[in-house]
Amino acid sequence: MKLELISFKLCPFAQRAVILLNLQNIDFKTTYINPMDPPNWFKKISPTGEVPLLKVDDKIVFESSVIGEFINDIGALDLYPKDAISKANNRSWVQFSSLLFNDLSVAVTGNEDEFNTSKASLFAKLDKIEIAKSDNKFFNGNNFTIIDAAIAPFFMRLAWINKFTNNTISIIEFKHLNAWSDAILAVKIVKTSVIKNLDDVYYSNIEAREGYLSTLLID
Amino acid sequence: MKLELISFKLCPFAQRAVILLNLQNIDFKTTYINPMDPPNWFKKISPTGEVPLLKVDDKIVFESSVIGEFINDIGALDLYPKDAISKANNRSWVQFSSLLFNDLSVAVTGNEDEFNTSKASLFAKLDKIEIAKSDNKFFNGNNFTIIDAAIAPFFMRLAWINKFTNNTISIIEFKHLNAWSDAILAVKIVKTSVIKNLDDVYYSNIEAREGYLSTLLID
Repeated sequence: MKLELISFKLCPFAQRAVILLNLQNIDFKTTYINPMDPPNWFKKISPTGEVPLLKVDDKIVFESSVIGEFINDIGALDLYPKDAISKANNRSWVQFSSLLFNDLSVAVTGNEDEFNTSKASLFAKLDKIEIAKSDNKFFNGNNFTIIDAAIAPFFMRLAWINKFTNNTISIIEFKHLNAWSDAILAVKIVKTSVIKNLDDVYYSNIEAREGYLSTLLID
Repeated sequence: MKLELISFKLCPFAQRAVILLNLQNIDFKTTYINPMDPPNWFKKISPTGEVPLLKVDDKIVFESSVIGEFINDIGALDLYPKDAISKANNRSWVQFSSLLFNDLSVAVTGNEDEFNTSKASLFAKLDKIEIAKSDNKFFNGNNFTIIDAAIAPFFMRLAWINKFTNNTISIIEFKHLNAWSDAILAVKIVKTSVIKNLDDVYYSNIEAREGYLSTLLID
């Protein structure tokens, strides 16, 4: 089976797939496209026009959570809890974690009002996750599983924002989430799931968007 | 295991769950709430504030596609294709089919411009599904599976709209989809997945929204 992940470099949803593919030790090739100006071949094969998209031989798997399920189905490791209700609970929180990226995106691009609204919206969601998260190192215990991979790109981007802007969106008040973020960002497979210097690219992206957040950047 | 599905009567995503629970012959209780004014007990247990939500004993499963996966995990029948890539392909189209409901909702509530835009957007999506759908009776052959359950609430609502408005959103030009809709709407478990007279409720809903579609209603 030949796998090709189609993505753009800053895409958090593609990063989830990279983490899971590497966790499962599955070989794949990555092809980057420009999401602002996708090539015609991409438009032809993508029903939604969105990345990530996984080509499996000549077949297409699309939608981030479906790609995660597929990787789990073909991988050697089952990265879900064994009992059905815990598995469903993990899947529910994976879907919920996807909502964080929209708030983060508005926080990066918006004006001051939009920044404050999206930060409040983000914190309301983090409140819910803080309660759902146990004292365990990762979501399900000592092992890194799908839900950890799903939220990793969020914690990575948030840590960059906080480094670049002197903790504008600090989550230090969320005890569980703060420890969870530290644990996840220390995992080697998470660190290597993005191209080198993606933090610089992210910094430039914040600058280029010229939102309120860009005025808070420190050098 | 005691299951309680929390929903409102017109919710297409809850209808998916009802179809799947009945297909699997799983007992459950339904509790309806008013989505415009949800009760406090619901706000407390729902992280997203959205229905459907499935209570499993004292645990919560939320997000429509996750509820579908859970029902498949606990059910006697595996309603996915066996091979991983076909299974992923089915899941991708389940996610894609969820996008249809937003267009339909705007078509019901919007003014004439919004109606036309949402109809065009809907037809662009139906074009993609028409190509993905084979000549089989159902999506995967002669058996009704998850992807058929996922799109059934859409076909049901579309058929009502077309009955009430003299085929304003006719899909007759989509050969595969038209036959698929007929096949799905003839399935007993689909017919009984909504309360009696929900078509009348839907008619009243179109009227009450006072969008462009309400001006096209025939008596």
